[in-house]
Amino acid sequence: MYCLIVYDVDVCKVSKINKFLKQYMNWIQNSVFEGELSNSDYVKVKKSLKSMIDKDNDSILIFKFRNKYSFDKETIGTERSPVTNIV
Amino acid sequence: MYCLIVYDVDVCKVSKINKFLKQYMNWIQNSVFEGELSNSDYVKVKKSLKSMIDKDNDSILIFKFRNKYSFDKETIGTERSPVTNIV
Repeated sequence: MYCLIVYDVDVCKVSKINKFLKQYMNWIQNSVFEGELSNSDYVKVKKSLKSMIDKDNDSILIFKFRNKYSFDKETIGTERSPVTNIV
Repeated sequence: MYCLIVYDVDVCKVSKINKFLKQYMNWIQNSVFEGELSNSDYVKVKKSLKSMIDKDNDSILIFKFRNKYSFDKETIGTERSPVTNIV
């Protein structure tokens, strides 16, 4: 499935979560990642994120799409990082 | 159309953009809004956002969907603000 992950966590966890998600997805903006995830990677990512955050104070949103063509995307201002394929 | 807007702007503009978007959409997380926009509101929102930011340093992403059922959403951790209908 194609996913978009947006996180709002305590500043001390930002770098750790960023590094973790970079292994699976494309960083597209401050605290925003998108990319294709296999079902097993999706489960792994969710489980790891759960273990990294404080569930009472941090918040992570995961949007799931059938594929990358399920939405149109527009950028206003500067493009932080265009999506590339992770090989 | 149904939209998701994620912004990463200089801290001095955050509150202004937040207040502006609240008139049209639902705030769901720090710097993230979602909601249904008519075509005319979509044009208005885009134009206003463009005028508010510094296009070389700020970044706003707009994801557009056919409707709110075009994706599944999951929250890990705390729910900042559940989506409600703006009447």
